[in-house]
Amino acid sequence: MTTNRQIILAEMPQGRLTPASFRLAEAPVPAPADGEVLVKARYISLDAANRAWMQGVTYRSALQAGQVMAGGSLAEVVESRSPGLAPGDLVFADIGWQEYGTAPGKHLARLPAMAPLTYLLSVYGVTGLTAYFGLLEVGKPKAGETVVVSAAAGAVGSLVGQIAKLKGCRVVGIAGGAQKCAWIKDALGFDEAVDYKAGGVRRALREACPDGVSVYFDNVGGDVFEAALFNMANHGRIVCCGAVSAYDDVPPPHGPRGVPGLIVTKRLRVEGFVVMDFYAARDAALAELHGWVESGQLKVVEDVIDGLENLPVALIGLLAGENRGKRMVKVD
Amino acid sequence: MTTNRQIILAEMPQGRLTPASFRLAEAPVPAPADGEVLVKARYISLDAANRAWMQGVTYRSALQAGQVMAGGSLAEVVESRSPGLAPGDLVFADIGWQEYGTAPGKHLARLPAMAPLTYLLSVYGVTGLTAYFGLLEVGKPKAGETVVVSAAAGAVGSLVGQIAKLKGCRVVGIAGGAQKCAWIKDALGFDEAVDYKAGGVRRALREACPDGVSVYFDNVGGDVFEAALFNMANHGRIVCCGAVSAYDDVPPPHGPRGVPGLIVTKRLRVEGFVVMDFYAARDAALAELHGWVESGQLKVVEDVIDGLENLPVALIGLLAGENRGKRMVKVD
Repeated sequence: MTTNRQIILAEMPQGRLTPASFRLAEAPVPAPADGEVLVKARYISLDAANRAWMQGVTYRSALQAGQVMAGGSLAEVVESRSPGLAPGDLVFADIGWQEYGTAPGKHLARLPAMAPLTYLLSVYGVTGLTAYFGLLEVGKPKAGETVVVSAAAGAVGSLVGQIAKLKGCRVVGIAGGAQKCAWIKDALGFDEAVDYKAGGVRRALREACPDGVSVYFDNVGGDVFEAALFNMANHGRIVCCGAVSAYDDVPPPHGPRGVPGLIVTKRLRVEGFVVMDFYAARDAALAELHGWVESGQLKVVEDVIDGLENLPVALIGLLAGENRGKRMVKVD
Repeated sequence: MTTNRQIILAEMPQGRLTPASFRLAEAPVPAPADGEVLVKARYISLDAANRAWMQGVTYRSALQAGQVMAGGSLAEVVESRSPGLAPGDLVFADIGWQEYGTAPGKHLARLPAMAPLTYLLSVYGVTGLTAYFGLLEVGKPKAGETVVVSAAAGAVGSLVGQIAKLKGCRVVGIAGGAQKCAWIKDALGFDEAVDYKAGGVRRALREACPDGVSVYFDNVGGDVFEAALFNMANHGRIVCCGAVSAYDDVPPPHGPRGVPGLIVTKRLRVEGFVVMDFYAARDAALAELHGWVESGQLKVVEDVIDGLENLPVALIGLLAGENRGKRMVKVD
């Protein structure tokens, strides 16, 4: 424990993200101040939102070139100057893409030890809670309704579809490519799948959802959002979770057609959310997720890549839709 | 009572609506079937939605060329074959642009006689209830919040802004031209006005709403929607009432930028509504509106044009923003 390997966001991407935006660096291991802890990253979460943070202010301030790349870690306390935490404790810490970081202890909650540990970043972490609260609290699906989710093979989408099935809904996933489409049906139990890369999404969705879409859980924005909007049933709900189609490039010149006209005539509710807003109800959500996982009703799919140095390519691949389930990097 | 003058939608408009789409015709006065009433139009309501119905299916089926133009009438029963209604009763009837029409009596509610009668079409009709329910039940403004409304000098907008003031909000109206902007402040009590015809709406709105917009009541869609979206406060609500900017032309090729990205990061709720969905609560709404009108706290602005034959130019003028308050045509 002498050096701290870091991935620096060396320059802001102008178009698509490439490895050239990042560089590996070494820095001294920081010392925790009074009230802080020093943590070591075990697994670093990869999320499409990482790329959005490069575009400007979101629910967090914009990233700046020259800084350690931002991201969340499942990390272990190695030195504590905060009364509630001790070495060996596991926490989720927003320390960015580096091996070591310090953080105020009062902002960290001790996580339970479990096997596999990675579940703390996937189904029991931001990913699982995003799927859970977004679908159930924002989308409010009723049994028998048709739920559509985009990026259906991804970390959040794969859980959204399964939770919707557990709640008695008919579930259609939108994913890229025939293999992913077959997989969400065969392995995850989706009722239907639409391959957006095959084109004609609006028509394919109409065929897959003859009674219209009651809840559309949107992870992507753009043309797929537009295709879903045109297929919504009256009084449908669109859950705006992310817009990955707009992240990895210059911002798109226009939004989807049908906004706001179809929102009026179909009486839709289109609602954005950020998972932290629901954290007051976290314990109950985790208990329900835990029950489903333990009983085998909810499959947890993870995609773990080894090595801090692989974070840039792991993120670039995630933006290209390479992963199935929750992607993270294991830090040695 | 021998002939029934009608305005026929002779051909569907290809671009902007012109008088050439309409023609005046005469037909026999229809006879009511059993269970129906024959009514005579007194005032015919003009609404931007009239134009939207020409674009395709909305919350009603699309209009067809060759039919009597659709529209709502404040009408008087002249012959009744329905037990609950008698000659002289006033009703709101969806009989279109003609002097006489028949309708099933069970779909009609007898309206109270009042002076001025026109209030039944404006503040106590679809217009007033649209403003009331859209703002209060969909937008849910809290005292002290900033409410922005577009088409602020129009029938719905002029009421929305005043009701928001009555509920303790700070109110900014968006209207076309310096005169309308001065008028909504001086005559209607809006706090600020933004002239969308002067350009730079996004910046002007930012200056008028330094703390962001908590509720945006949208009557127009398009660029003004986009300008409002970029100025929303976190957890703001956009009430989608109409999209007049998109009605009087071919449908726009794209929607507003920032959809759905800003909806996510600002955690917005964007919700469309159609006033009929709220009619279960109509009596309480009318009572509150009545109280405000009687006490002089709510100004009712009407724009009454004489003569059935003037319906086409009245609608064309409404789409161009000619009117202040509720426009209707008096049928002799």
